[in-house]
Amino acid sequence: MEEAKGFVRRVLLVKFKAETAPDHVERLIKDYSNLVNLVKSLKTWHMGKDASIENLHEGFTHVFELTFEDAKGAAAYVVHPAHLEFHERIGPHMEKTAMIDYKPTSFHT
Amino acid sequence: MEEAKGFVRRVLLVKFKAETAPDHVERLIKDYSNLVNLVKSLKTWHMGKDASIENLHEGFTHVFELTFEDAKGAAAYVVHPAHLEFHERIGPHMEKTAMIDYKPTSFHT
Repeated sequence: MEEAKGFVRRVLLVKFKAETAPDHVERLIKDYSNLVNLVKSLKTWHMGKDASIENLHEGFTHVFELTFEDAKGAAAYVVHPAHLEFHERIGPHMEKTAMIDYKPTSFHT
Repeated sequence: MEEAKGFVRRVLLVKFKAETAPDHVERLIKDYSNLVNLVKSLKTWHMGKDASIENLHEGFTHVFELTFEDAKGAAAYVVHPAHLEFHERIGPHMEKTAMIDYKPTSFHT
């Protein structure tokens, strides 16, 4: 098993509330992406909308993937004032979430 | 908004059944990783176990991230015999799943 050096990835699946206007969702996503400029340990930020053809999304509509330099950096993000402030604002608009932090690993086969 | 060229990422969150023995889970994961050798359009395969400190995983314990060369490649994977055969074997061991296919996108901020 080969573990990527130290970096930690966070995957967050979100279903936004139906009553949140689409342009408000877009604004929140823009602000979310801006955390990469505000939190030093946050190295990459990407998002995507569900485009699968198998309909196994369980209602989730958006995915966010963040990369931190290491576990310490992920922990620093969690308590960073810019993250906490953003979390306060996006929280009320999320109907459902699931989130995993992990060290991406592959195998030699 | 900047969209990654053509490539498509699949994120799958899984909670395995409690009655599936850990070494059986490990064997299934190994077989899963081997699909990268069997399905041409599957370009990368990584997995990880939840290591978050915020306990927002909703019971999911594993994440799998696959990358396809494009949407056509993702569609080819879905119906590929090696994928279908593996799906038959892993299916009964999964208590809960959530899956999203997407084109990773970032913003210039």
